[in-house]
Amino acid sequence: MSAGSAEFSLPIRVYIEDTDAGGIVYYVNYLKYFERARTEFMRSLGYDKAALPEEDLMFVVSKASLQYRDPARLDELLEVTAQVISVGGATLTFVQSVNRAGECLVDGEVVIALVSTLTGRPRRLPTALRDRIGV
Amino acid sequence: MSAGSAEFSLPIRVYIEDTDAGGIVYYVNYLKYFERARTEFMRSLGYDKAALPEEDLMFVVSKASLQYRDPARLDELLEVTAQVISVGGATLTFVQSVNRAGECLVDGEVVIALVSTLTGRPRRLPTALRDRIGV
Amino acid sequence: MSAGSAEFSLPIRVYIEDTDAGGIVYYVNYLKYFERARTEFMRSLGYDKAALPEEDLMFVVSKASLQYRDPARLDELLEVTAQVISVGGATLTFVQSVNRAGECLVDGEVVIALVSTLTGRPRRLPTALRDRIGV
Amino acid sequence: MSAGSAEFSLPIRVYIEDTDAGGIVYYVNYLKYFERARTEFMRSLGYDKAALPEEDLMFVVSKASLQYRDPARLDELLEVTAQVISVGGATLTFVQSVNRAGECLVDGEVVIALVSTLTGRPRRLPTALRDRIGV
Repeated sequence: MSAGSAEFSLPIRVYIEDTDAGGIVYYVNYLKYFERARTEFMRSLGYDKAALPEEDLMFVVSKASLQYRDPARLDELLEVTAQVISVGGATLTFVQSVNRAGECLVDGEVVIALVSTLTGRPRRLPTALRDRIGV
Repeated sequence: MSAGSAEFSLPIRVYIEDTDAGGIVYYVNYLKYFERARTEFMRSLGYDKAALPEEDLMFVVSKASLQYRDPARLDELLEVTAQVISVGGATLTFVQSVNRAGECLVDGEVVIALVSTLTGRPRRLPTALRDRIGV
Repeated sequence: MSAGSAEFSLPIRVYIEDTDAGGIVYYVNYLKYFERARTEFMRSLGYDKAALPEEDLMFVVSKASLQYRDPARLDELLEVTAQVISVGGATLTFVQSVNRAGECLVDGEVVIALVSTLTGRPRRLPTALRDRIGV
Repeated sequence: MSAGSAEFSLPIRVYIEDTDAGGIVYYVNYLKYFERARTEFMRSLGYDKAALPEEDLMFVVSKASLQYRDPARLDELLEVTAQVISVGGATLTFVQSVNRAGECLVDGEVVIALVSTLTGRPRRLPTALRDRIGV
Protein backbone atom coordinates (compact mmCIF):
# COMPACT_ATOMS: atom_id res chain seq x y z
CA MET A 1 0.00 0.00 0.00
CA SER A 2 1.27 3.40 -1.00
CA ALA A 3 0.98 6.88 0.45
CA GLY A 4 0.62 8.30 -3.08
CA SER A 5 2.72 10.72 -5.05
CA ALA A 6 3.79 14.13 -3.85
CA GLU A 7 1.29 16.92 -4.54
CA PHE A 8 2.06 18.85 -7.70
CA SER A 9 0.88 22.45 -8.06
CA LEU A 10 0.51 24.64 -11.15
CA PRO A 11 -0.29 28.39 -11.16
CA ILE A 12 -3.09 29.26 -13.60
CA ARG A 13 -4.35 32.73 -14.45
CA VAL A 14 -8.06 33.18 -15.20
CA TYR A 15 -8.66 34.72 -18.64
CA ILE A 16 -11.90 36.01 -20.13
CA GLU A 17 -12.12 32.79 -22.20
CA ASP A 18 -12.62 30.88 -18.92
CA THR A 19 -15.57 32.90 -17.65
CA ASP A 20 -19.30 32.90 -18.28
CA ALA A 21 -22.20 35.35 -18.10
CA GLY A 22 -22.47 34.75 -14.35
CA GLY A 23 -19.23 36.74 -14.07
CA ILE A 24 -17.34 33.70 -12.76
CA VAL A 25 -15.25 30.84 -14.17
CA TYR A 26 -17.55 28.55 -16.16
CA TYR A 27 -17.70 25.44 -14.00
CA VAL A 28 -16.90 23.10 -16.90
CA ASN A 29 -13.52 24.79 -17.34
CA TYR A 30 -12.15 23.60 -14.00
CA LEU A 31 -11.78 20.21 -15.69
CA LYS A 32 -9.43 21.91 -18.16
CA TYR A 33 -7.45 23.36 -15.27
CA PHE A 34 -7.30 19.91 -13.69
CA GLU A 35 -5.97 18.44 -16.91
CA ARG A 36 -3.29 21.10 -17.34
CA ALA A 37 -2.05 20.29 -13.83
CA ARG A 38 -2.01 16.52 -14.53
CA THR A 39 -0.18 17.12 -17.81
CA GLU A 40 2.51 19.25 -16.16
CA PHE A 41 2.79 16.74 -13.31
CA MET A 42 3.50 13.99 -15.84
CA ARG A 43 5.92 16.24 -17.71
CA SER A 44 7.73 16.99 -14.43
CA LEU A 45 8.37 13.23 -14.17
CA GLY A 46 9.92 13.25 -17.61
CA TYR A 47 6.77 11.55 -18.75
CA ASP A 48 5.19 13.05 -21.82
CA LYS A 49 3.73 11.26 -24.80
CA ALA A 50 7.19 10.41 -26.10
CA ALA A 51 7.82 8.44 -22.93
CA LEU A 52 5.06 5.90 -23.60
CA PRO A 53 6.77 2.65 -24.57
CA GLU A 54 4.50 1.92 -27.51
CA GLU A 55 2.92 4.15 -30.12
CA ASP A 56 -0.51 2.66 -29.74
CA LEU A 57 -1.08 3.63 -26.10
CA MET A 58 -2.93 6.63 -24.74
CA PHE A 59 -4.44 7.81 -21.49
CA VAL A 60 -8.18 8.43 -21.34
CA VAL A 61 -10.30 9.78 -18.51
CA SER A 62 -12.65 7.10 -17.20
CA LYS A 63 -14.23 8.96 -14.25
CA ALA A 64 -14.33 12.50 -12.96
CA SER A 65 -16.10 14.14 -10.04
CA LEU A 66 -16.04 17.72 -8.82
CA GLN A 67 -17.36 19.70 -5.89
CA TYR A 68 -17.78 23.42 -6.31
CA ARG A 69 -17.30 25.41 -3.11
CA ASP A 70 -16.68 28.98 -4.23
CA PRO A 71 -16.29 30.56 -7.68
CA ALA A 72 -13.07 31.90 -9.20
CA ARG A 73 -13.21 35.20 -11.10
CA LEU A 74 -11.57 36.99 -14.00
CA ASP A 75 -7.86 37.86 -13.60
CA GLU A 76 -7.40 35.80 -10.42
CA LEU A 77 -4.26 33.74 -10.05
CA LEU A 78 -5.08 30.20 -8.96
CA GLU A 79 -3.08 27.22 -7.81
CA VAL A 80 -4.23 23.93 -9.27
CA THR A 81 -3.00 20.71 -7.70
CA ALA A 82 -2.66 17.11 -8.86
CA GLN A 83 -1.71 14.15 -6.69
CA VAL A 84 -1.89 10.44 -7.45
CA ILE A 85 -3.62 8.69 -4.56
CA SER A 86 -3.89 5.20 -5.96
CA VAL A 87 -2.65 3.05 -8.82
CA GLY A 88 -4.51 0.14 -10.38
CA GLY A 89 -3.42 -2.27 -13.07
CA ALA A 90 -4.30 0.13 -15.86
CA THR A 91 -5.43 3.23 -13.95
CA LEU A 92 -4.19 6.21 -11.98
CA THR A 93 -6.49 8.00 -9.53
CA PHE A 94 -5.80 11.68 -8.93
CA VAL A 95 -7.17 14.03 -6.30
CA GLN A 96 -7.12 17.58 -7.53
CA SER A 97 -8.06 21.04 -6.32
CA VAL A 98 -8.25 24.65 -7.42
CA ASN A 99 -7.13 27.13 -4.79
CA ARG A 100 -7.00 30.90 -4.37
CA ALA A 101 -4.79 32.31 -1.66
CA GLY A 102 -4.91 29.03 0.23
CA GLU A 103 -8.68 28.62 0.01
CA CYS A 104 -10.04 25.59 -1.84
CA LEU A 105 -12.58 26.67 -4.47
CA VAL A 106 -13.08 23.35 -6.25
CA ASP A 107 -11.86 19.84 -5.58
CA GLY A 108 -12.40 16.51 -7.19
CA GLU A 109 -11.12 13.14 -8.26
CA VAL A 110 -10.14 11.98 -11.74
CA VAL A 111 -9.40 8.41 -12.83
CA ILE A 112 -7.36 7.96 -15.98
CA ALA A 113 -6.79 4.67 -17.73
CA LEU A 114 -4.12 3.53 -20.15
CA VAL A 115 -5.73 2.04 -23.25
CA SER A 116 -4.73 0.73 -26.63
CA THR A 117 -5.57 3.25 -29.37
CA LEU A 118 -6.27 0.29 -31.66
CA THR A 119 -8.67 -1.70 -29.51
CA GLY A 120 -9.70 0.77 -26.79
CA ARG A 121 -8.94 -1.98 -24.24
CA PRO A 122 -7.09 -1.29 -20.98
CA ARG A 123 -3.34 -1.91 -20.98
CA ARG A 124 -1.10 -2.52 -18.00
CA LEU A 125 0.76 0.58 -16.75
CA PRO A 126 4.48 0.36 -17.58
CA THR A 127 6.67 -0.35 -14.57
CA ALA A 128 8.81 2.67 -15.42
CA LEU A 129 5.78 4.91 -15.04
CA ARG A 130 4.86 3.39 -11.69
CA ASP A 131 8.41 3.90 -10.52
CA ARG A 132 8.52 7.52 -11.57
CA ILE A 133 5.21 8.29 -9.89
CA GLY A 134 6.53 6.61 -6.78
CA VAL A 135 3.34 4.84 -5.73
CA MET B 1 -41.27 10.73 -1.78
CA SER B 2 -41.19 11.24 -5.51
CA ALA B 3 -40.38 9.08 -8.51
CA GLY B 4 -38.65 12.05 -10.14
CA SER B 5 -39.39 14.00 -13.28
CA ALA B 6 -39.88 12.45 -16.70
CA GLU B 7 -36.69 11.92 -18.68
CA PHE B 8 -36.00 14.73 -21.12
CA SER B 9 -33.90 14.07 -24.23
CA LEU B 10 -32.12 16.46 -26.58
CA PRO B 11 -30.45 15.54 -29.90
CA ILE B 12 -26.92 16.99 -30.21
CA ARG B 13 -24.65 16.80 -33.24
CA VAL B 14 -20.89 16.48 -32.67
CA TYR B 15 -18.96 19.29 -34.37
CA ILE B 16 -15.22 19.65 -34.82
CA GLU B 17 -15.20 22.21 -31.96
CA ASP B 18 -16.17 19.36 -29.60
CA THR B 19 -13.32 17.01 -30.49
CA ASP B 20 -9.68 16.69 -29.48
CA ALA B 21 -6.46 15.32 -30.93
CA GLY B 22 -7.45 11.82 -29.82
CA GLY B 23 -10.04 11.96 -32.62
CA ILE B 24 -12.91 11.79 -30.13
CA VAL B 25 -15.14 14.20 -28.21
CA TYR B 26 -13.01 15.98 -25.61
CA TYR B 27 -14.27 14.50 -22.35
CA VAL B 28 -14.73 17.91 -20.73
CA ASN B 29 -17.31 18.83 -23.35
CA TYR B 30 -19.84 16.24 -22.22
CA LEU B 31 -20.53 18.61 -19.32
CA LYS B 32 -21.55 21.19 -21.92
CA TYR B 33 -23.88 18.65 -23.52
CA PHE B 34 -25.34 17.88 -20.10
CA GLU B 35 -25.98 21.55 -19.49
CA ARG B 36 -27.66 22.10 -22.85
CA ALA B 37 -30.05 19.24 -22.00
CA ARG B 38 -30.80 20.66 -18.54
CA THR B 39 -31.39 24.10 -20.04
CA GLU B 40 -33.83 22.79 -22.65
CA PHE B 41 -35.55 20.65 -20.01
CA MET B 42 -36.14 23.77 -17.91
CA ARG B 43 -37.27 25.70 -20.99
CA SER B 44 -39.72 22.89 -21.83
CA LEU B 45 -41.30 23.55 -18.42
CA GLY B 46 -41.73 27.19 -19.31
CA TYR B 47 -38.89 27.84 -16.93
CA ASP B 48 -36.17 30.07 -18.25
CA LYS B 49 -34.39 32.88 -16.48
CA ALA B 50 -37.39 35.15 -16.85
CA ALA B 51 -39.41 32.69 -14.77
CA LEU B 52 -37.32 33.16 -11.65
CA PRO B 53 -39.42 35.15 -9.19
CA GLU B 54 -36.63 37.49 -8.19
CA GLU B 55 -33.85 39.12 -10.14
CA ASP B 56 -31.16 38.21 -7.67
CA LEU B 57 -31.46 34.41 -7.99
CA MET B 58 -29.42 32.08 -10.14
CA PHE B 59 -28.67 28.39 -10.41
CA VAL B 60 -25.11 27.21 -9.88
CA VAL B 61 -23.65 23.73 -10.20
CA SER B 62 -22.52 22.43 -6.81
CA LYS B 63 -21.48 18.88 -7.74
CA ALA B 64 -20.87 16.92 -10.93
CA SER B 65 -19.69 13.39 -11.61
CA LEU B 66 -19.22 11.54 -14.87
CA GLN B 67 -18.37 8.05 -16.00
CA TYR B 68 -16.92 7.61 -19.47
CA ARG B 69 -17.81 4.29 -21.12
CA ASP B 70 -17.18 4.79 -24.81
CA PRO B 71 -16.15 7.85 -26.84
CA ALA B 72 -18.35 9.81 -29.26
CA ARG B 73 -16.85 10.92 -32.57
CA LEU B 74 -17.07 13.72 -35.10
CA ASP B 75 -20.40 14.08 -36.94
CA GLU B 76 -22.24 11.61 -34.76
CA LEU B 77 -25.78 12.43 -33.67
CA LEU B 78 -26.21 11.90 -29.94
CA GLU B 79 -29.15 11.89 -27.56
CA VAL B 80 -28.46 13.66 -24.27
CA THR B 81 -30.86 13.11 -21.39
CA ALA B 82 -31.73 15.01 -18.22
CA GLN B 83 -33.95 13.77 -15.42
CA VAL B 84 -34.50 15.18 -11.95
CA ILE B 85 -34.18 12.36 -9.42
CA SER B 86 -34.39 14.30 -6.21
CA VAL B 87 -35.21 17.74 -4.89
CA GLY B 88 -33.79 19.33 -1.77
CA GLY B 89 -34.59 22.64 -0.12
CA ALA B 90 -32.37 24.61 -2.48
CA THR B 91 -31.12 21.89 -4.85
CA LEU B 92 -32.09 19.75 -7.83
CA THR B 93 -30.24 16.51 -8.54
CA PHE B 94 -30.14 15.37 -12.16
CA VAL B 95 -29.08 12.08 -13.66
CA GLN B 96 -27.87 12.54 -17.19
CA SER B 97 -26.50 10.48 -20.05
CA VAL B 98 -25.11 10.76 -23.56
CA ASN B 99 -26.29 8.05 -25.91
CA ARG B 100 -25.60 6.94 -29.48
CA ALA B 101 -28.10 4.63 -31.13
CA GLY B 102 -29.35 3.45 -27.75
CA GLU B 103 -25.90 2.81 -26.30
CA CYS B 104 -24.85 4.83 -23.25
CA LEU B 105 -21.48 6.49 -23.85
CA VAL B 106 -21.30 8.72 -20.77
CA ASP B 107 -23.49 9.08 -17.71
CA GLY B 108 -23.36 11.13 -14.59
CA GLU B 109 -25.05 13.14 -11.91
CA VAL B 110 -25.23 16.90 -11.52
CA VAL B 111 -26.48 18.82 -8.49
CA ILE B 112 -27.55 22.41 -9.02
CA ALA B 113 -28.37 24.88 -6.27
CA LEU B 114 -30.41 28.04 -6.29
CA VAL B 115 -28.39 30.88 -4.76
CA SER B 116 -28.67 34.60 -4.25
CA THR B 117 -26.48 36.49 -6.70
CA LEU B 118 -25.91 39.08 -3.98
CA THR B 119 -24.80 36.85 -1.13
CA GLY B 120 -24.01 33.53 -2.82
CA ARG B 121 -26.14 31.85 -0.12
CA PRO B 122 -28.63 29.06 -0.94
CA ARG B 123 -32.24 30.09 -1.44
CA ARG B 124 -35.34 27.94 -1.18
CA LEU B 125 -36.66 26.61 -4.50
CA PRO B 126 -39.90 28.36 -5.46
CA THR B 127 -43.00 26.20 -5.07
CA ALA B 128 -43.98 26.94 -8.67
CA LEU B 129 -40.74 25.36 -9.87
CA ARG B 130 -41.24 22.26 -7.73
CA ASP B 131 -44.75 21.94 -9.12
CA ARG B 132 -43.64 22.23 -12.72
CA ILE B 133 -40.88 19.67 -12.26
CA GLY B 134 -43.42 17.38 -10.68
CA VAL B 135 -41.21 15.94 -7.97
CA MET C 1 -17.97 33.59 -63.32
CA SER C 2 -20.51 32.54 -60.75
CA ALA C 3 -23.08 34.31 -58.62
CA GLY C 4 -22.21 31.99 -55.73
CA SER C 5 -24.20 29.39 -53.86
CA ALA C 6 -27.56 29.98 -52.26
CA GLU C 7 -27.41 31.32 -48.71
CA PHE C 8 -27.74 28.61 -46.09
CA SER C 9 -29.08 29.46 -42.62
CA LEU C 10 -28.87 27.55 -39.34
CA PRO C 11 -30.70 28.44 -36.10
CA ILE C 12 -28.38 28.41 -33.07
CA ARG C 13 -29.38 28.92 -29.45
CA VAL C 14 -26.96 30.74 -27.13
CA TYR C 15 -26.04 28.63 -24.09
CA ILE C 16 -24.11 29.65 -20.99
CA GLU C 17 -21.04 27.85 -22.40
CA ASP C 18 -20.96 30.49 -25.17
CA THR C 19 -20.89 33.55 -22.92
CA ASP C 20 -18.21 35.41 -20.98
CA ALA C 21 -17.98 37.62 -17.91
CA GLY C 22 -19.06 40.60 -20.00
CA GLY C 23 -22.52 39.01 -20.02
CA ILE C 24 -22.40 38.51 -23.80
CA VAL C 25 -21.33 35.80 -26.26
CA TYR C 26 -17.54 35.47 -26.09
CA TYR C 27 -16.44 36.90 -29.43
CA VAL C 28 -14.20 33.93 -30.22
CA ASN C 29 -17.24 31.64 -30.21
CA TYR C 30 -18.82 33.22 -33.27
CA LEU C 31 -16.18 31.33 -35.27
CA LYS C 32 -17.68 28.13 -33.85
CA TYR C 33 -21.14 29.26 -34.93
CA PHE C 34 -19.76 30.02 -38.40
CA GLU C 35 -18.27 26.53 -38.62
CA ARG C 36 -21.48 24.81 -37.54
CA ALA C 37 -23.31 26.63 -40.35
CA ARG C 38 -20.65 25.68 -42.94
CA THR C 39 -20.77 22.07 -41.76
CA GLU C 40 -24.55 21.87 -42.05
CA PHE C 41 -24.41 23.62 -45.44
CA MET C 42 -22.02 20.94 -46.68
CA ARG C 43 -24.17 18.21 -45.14
CA SER C 44 -27.25 19.67 -46.89
CA LEU C 45 -25.40 19.09 -50.17
CA GLY C 46 -24.91 15.45 -49.25
CA TYR C 47 -21.32 16.38 -48.62
CA ASP C 48 -19.90 15.17 -45.37
CA LYS C 49 -16.53 13.59 -44.72
CA ALA C 50 -17.66 10.34 -46.29
CA ALA C 51 -18.21 12.19 -49.56
CA LEU C 52 -14.55 13.11 -49.99
CA PRO C 53 -13.19 10.94 -52.79
CA GLU C 54 -9.99 10.02 -50.98
CA GLU C 55 -9.24 9.27 -47.36
CA ASP C 56 -6.25 11.56 -47.19
CA LEU C 57 -8.09 14.81 -47.88
CA MET C 58 -9.39 17.33 -45.40
CA PHE C 59 -10.57 20.93 -45.34
CA VAL C 60 -8.62 23.45 -43.29
CA VAL C 61 -9.35 27.12 -42.64
CA SER C 62 -6.72 29.33 -44.27
CA LYS C 63 -8.16 32.79 -43.52
CA ALA C 64 -10.89 34.22 -41.34
CA SER C 65 -12.07 37.76 -40.66
CA LEU C 66 -14.90 39.03 -38.50
CA GLN C 67 -16.58 42.33 -37.76
CA TYR C 68 -18.46 42.66 -34.50
CA ARG C 69 -21.44 45.03 -34.66
CA ASP C 70 -23.60 44.15 -31.67
CA PRO C 71 -23.33 41.42 -29.03
CA ALA C 72 -25.58 38.37 -28.69
CA ARG C 73 -26.73 37.35 -25.22
CA LEU C 74 -27.63 34.27 -23.22
CA ASP C 75 -30.73 32.34 -24.37
CA GLU C 76 -31.12 34.26 -27.61
CA LEU C 77 -32.01 32.36 -30.77
CA LEU C 78 -29.73 33.35 -33.62
CA GLU C 79 -29.66 32.66 -37.34
CA VAL C 80 -26.19 31.90 -38.69
CA THR C 81 -25.65 32.00 -42.44
CA ALA C 82 -23.09 30.50 -44.82
CA GLN C 83 -22.78 31.28 -48.51
CA VAL C 84 -20.01 30.41 -50.95
CA ILE C 85 -19.07 33.54 -52.88
CA SER C 86 -16.08 32.26 -54.80
CA VAL C 87 -14.27 29.06 -55.66
CA GLY C 88 -10.57 28.72 -56.39
CA GLY C 89 -8.56 25.70 -57.47
CA ALA C 90 -8.29 24.36 -53.94
CA THR C 91 -10.35 26.87 -51.95
CA LEU C 92 -13.89 27.92 -51.09
CA THR C 93 -14.62 31.44 -49.84
CA PHE C 94 -17.64 31.87 -47.58
CA VAL C 95 -19.39 35.01 -46.41
CA GLN C 96 -21.11 34.41 -43.12
CA SER C 97 -23.20 36.29 -40.61
CA VAL C 98 -24.87 35.94 -37.23
CA ASN C 99 -28.31 37.52 -37.03
CA ARG C 100 -30.94 38.15 -34.37
CA ALA C 101 -34.45 39.00 -35.51
CA GLY C 102 -33.14 40.20 -38.87
CA GLU C 103 -30.37 42.35 -37.43
CA CYS C 104 -26.78 41.47 -38.31
CA LEU C 105 -24.66 41.15 -35.14
CA VAL C 106 -21.46 39.74 -36.65
CA ASP C 107 -20.34 39.12 -40.19
CA GLY C 108 -17.20 37.87 -41.79
CA GLU C 109 -15.42 35.88 -44.44
CA VAL C 110 -13.80 32.47 -44.14
CA VAL C 111 -11.55 30.79 -46.72
CA ILE C 112 -11.19 27.03 -46.49
CA ALA C 113 -8.70 24.97 -48.47
CA LEU C 114 -8.66 21.31 -49.39
CA VAL C 115 -5.33 19.77 -48.40
CA SER C 116 -3.70 16.39 -48.26
CA THR C 117 -3.55 15.07 -44.70
CA LEU C 118 -0.23 13.42 -45.61
CA THR C 119 1.62 16.37 -47.09
CA GLY C 120 -0.43 19.38 -45.98
CA ARG C 121 -0.31 20.57 -49.62
CA PRO C 122 -3.36 22.02 -51.41
CA ARG C 123 -5.38 19.60 -53.53
CA ARG C 124 -7.74 20.42 -56.38
CA LEU C 125 -11.43 20.54 -55.39
CA PRO C 126 -13.31 17.54 -56.81
CA THR C 127 -15.60 18.39 -59.72
CA ALA C 128 -18.50 16.71 -57.93
CA LEU C 129 -18.14 19.16 -55.06
CA ARG C 130 -18.05 22.15 -57.39
CA ASP C 131 -21.17 20.87 -59.09
CA ARG C 132 -23.06 20.39 -55.86
CA ILE C 133 -22.14 23.86 -54.60
CA GLY C 134 -23.31 25.23 -57.91
CA VAL C 135 -20.62 27.84 -58.36
CA MET D 1 2.36 59.45 -36.30
CA SER D 2 3.70 56.70 -34.10
CA ALA D 3 5.97 53.71 -34.59
CA GLY D 4 3.71 51.66 -32.33
CA SER D 5 4.37 49.90 -29.05
CA ALA D 6 7.16 47.43 -28.46
CA GLU D 7 6.31 43.83 -29.33
CA PHE D 8 5.16 41.80 -26.35
CA SER D 9 5.61 38.03 -26.34
CA LEU D 10 3.98 35.35 -24.18
CA PRO D 11 4.95 31.65 -24.09
CA ILE D 12 1.91 29.36 -24.38
CA ARG D 13 1.90 25.57 -24.11
CA VAL D 14 -0.57 23.61 -26.27
CA TYR D 15 -2.83 21.37 -24.16
CA ILE D 16 -5.26 18.72 -25.31
CA GLU D 17 -8.13 21.18 -24.69
CA ASP D 18 -6.75 23.30 -27.55
CA THR D 19 -6.70 20.57 -30.19
CA ASP D 20 -9.28 19.02 -32.51
CA ALA D 21 -9.85 15.73 -34.30
CA GLY D 22 -7.50 16.85 -37.08
CA GLY D 23 -4.70 16.34 -34.54
CA ILE D 24 -3.85 20.04 -34.57
CA VAL D 25 -4.77 23.17 -32.61
CA TYR D 26 -8.40 24.02 -33.39
CA TYR D 27 -8.09 27.17 -35.48
CA VAL D 28 -10.65 29.07 -33.40
CA ASN D 29 -8.43 28.77 -30.34
CA TYR D 30 -5.67 30.96 -31.76
CA LEU D 31 -7.99 33.88 -30.98
CA LYS D 32 -7.82 32.79 -27.33
CA TYR D 33 -4.03 32.74 -27.53
CA PHE D 34 -4.10 36.22 -29.07
CA GLU D 35 -6.26 37.49 -26.23
CA ARG D 36 -4.04 36.02 -23.52
CA ALA D 37 -1.09 37.86 -25.07
CA ARG D 38 -3.01 41.16 -25.26
CA THR D 39 -4.14 40.73 -21.65
CA GLU D 40 -0.61 40.12 -20.38
CA PHE D 41 0.68 43.00 -22.49
CA MET D 42 -1.82 45.31 -20.80
CA ARG D 43 -0.96 43.86 -17.40
CA SER D 44 2.76 44.45 -18.10
CA LEU D 45 1.87 48.15 -18.48
CA GLY D 46 0.25 48.11 -15.06
CA TYR D 47 -3.02 48.25 -16.92
CA ASP D 48 -5.59 45.74 -15.78
CA LYS D 49 -9.28 46.29 -15.21
CA ALA D 50 -8.60 48.10 -11.97
CA ALA D 51 -6.68 50.71 -13.94
CA LEU D 52 -9.69 51.85 -15.96
CA PRO D 53 -10.67 55.27 -14.65
CA GLU D 54 -14.39 54.53 -14.51
CA GLU D 55 -16.35 51.46 -13.56
CA ASP D 56 -18.57 51.56 -16.60
CA LEU D 57 -15.85 51.12 -19.23
CA MET D 58 -14.76 47.95 -20.94
CA PHE D 59 -12.79 46.88 -23.99
CA VAL D 60 -14.57 44.92 -26.71
CA VAL D 61 -13.19 43.39 -29.90
CA SER D 62 -14.58 45.15 -32.95
CA LYS D 63 -12.62 43.41 -35.71
CA ALA D 64 -10.38 40.37 -36.01
CA SER D 65 -8.61 38.73 -38.93
CA LEU D 66 -6.31 35.72 -39.05
CA GLN D 67 -4.17 33.95 -41.59
CA TYR D 68 -3.31 30.33 -40.96
CA ARG D 69 0.07 29.28 -42.36
CA ASP D 70 0.98 26.09 -40.53
CA PRO D 71 -0.73 24.20 -37.70
CA ALA D 72 0.50 23.93 -34.10
CA ARG D 73 0.28 20.55 -32.37
CA LEU D 74 -0.22 19.04 -28.94
CA ASP D 75 2.50 19.75 -26.35
CA GLU D 76 4.28 22.33 -28.46
CA LEU D 77 5.56 25.47 -26.77
CA LEU D 78 4.53 28.56 -28.73
CA GLU D 79 5.38 32.25 -28.55
CA VAL D 80 2.39 34.53 -29.02
CA THR D 81 3.01 38.20 -29.73
CA ALA D 82 0.99 41.39 -29.35
CA GLN D 83 1.97 44.81 -30.61
CA VAL D 84 -0.10 47.97 -30.90
CA ILE D 85 0.37 49.41 -34.38
CA SER D 86 -2.14 52.24 -34.27
CA VAL D 87 -4.35 54.13 -31.88
CA GLY D 88 -7.63 55.80 -32.72
CA GLY D 89 -9.93 57.93 -30.57
CA ALA D 90 -11.54 54.90 -28.96
CA THR D 91 -9.59 52.01 -30.50
CA LEU D 92 -6.32 50.11 -30.35
CA THR D 93 -5.15 48.06 -33.33
CA PHE D 94 -2.91 45.09 -32.56
CA VAL D 95 -0.86 42.93 -34.89
CA GLN D 96 -0.38 39.48 -33.41
CA SER D 97 1.29 36.22 -34.27
CA VAL D 98 1.75 32.67 -33.05
CA ASN D 99 5.25 31.31 -33.51
CA ARG D 100 7.07 28.02 -33.03
CA ALA D 101 10.85 28.07 -32.93
CA GLY D 102 10.91 31.32 -34.86
CA GLU D 103 8.45 30.21 -37.54
CA CYS D 104 5.19 32.13 -37.86
CA LEU D 105 2.23 29.70 -37.78
CA VAL D 106 -0.63 32.20 -37.58
CA ASP D 107 -0.78 35.97 -37.76
CA GLY D 108 -3.53 38.51 -37.69
CA GLU D 109 -4.88 41.85 -36.64
CA VAL D 110 -7.31 42.66 -33.85
CA VAL D 111 -9.04 45.98 -33.22
CA ILE D 112 -10.38 46.61 -29.74
CA ALA D 113 -12.61 49.51 -28.74
CA LEU D 114 -13.28 51.11 -25.40
CA VAL D 115 -17.02 51.30 -24.80
CA SER D 116 -19.41 52.26 -22.06
CA THR D 117 -20.92 49.19 -20.43
CA LEU D 118 -24.12 51.18 -19.94
CA THR D 119 -24.68 52.46 -23.46
CA GLY D 120 -22.35 50.32 -25.59
CA ARG D 121 -21.09 53.57 -27.18
CA PRO D 122 -17.39 54.21 -27.87
CA ARG D 123 -15.51 56.19 -25.25
CA ARG D 124 -12.28 58.15 -25.68
CA LEU D 125 -9.15 56.27 -24.58
CA PRO D 126 -7.75 57.74 -21.36
CA THR D 127 -4.58 59.77 -21.86
CA ALA D 128 -2.83 57.69 -19.20
CA LEU D 129 -3.41 54.57 -21.28
CA ARG D 130 -2.07 56.21 -24.43
CA ASP D 131 0.99 57.30 -22.51
CA ARG D 132 1.68 53.85 -21.10
CA ILE D 133 1.31 52.20 -24.48
CA GLY D 134 3.69 54.77 -25.87
CA VAL D 135 1.98 55.36 -29.19
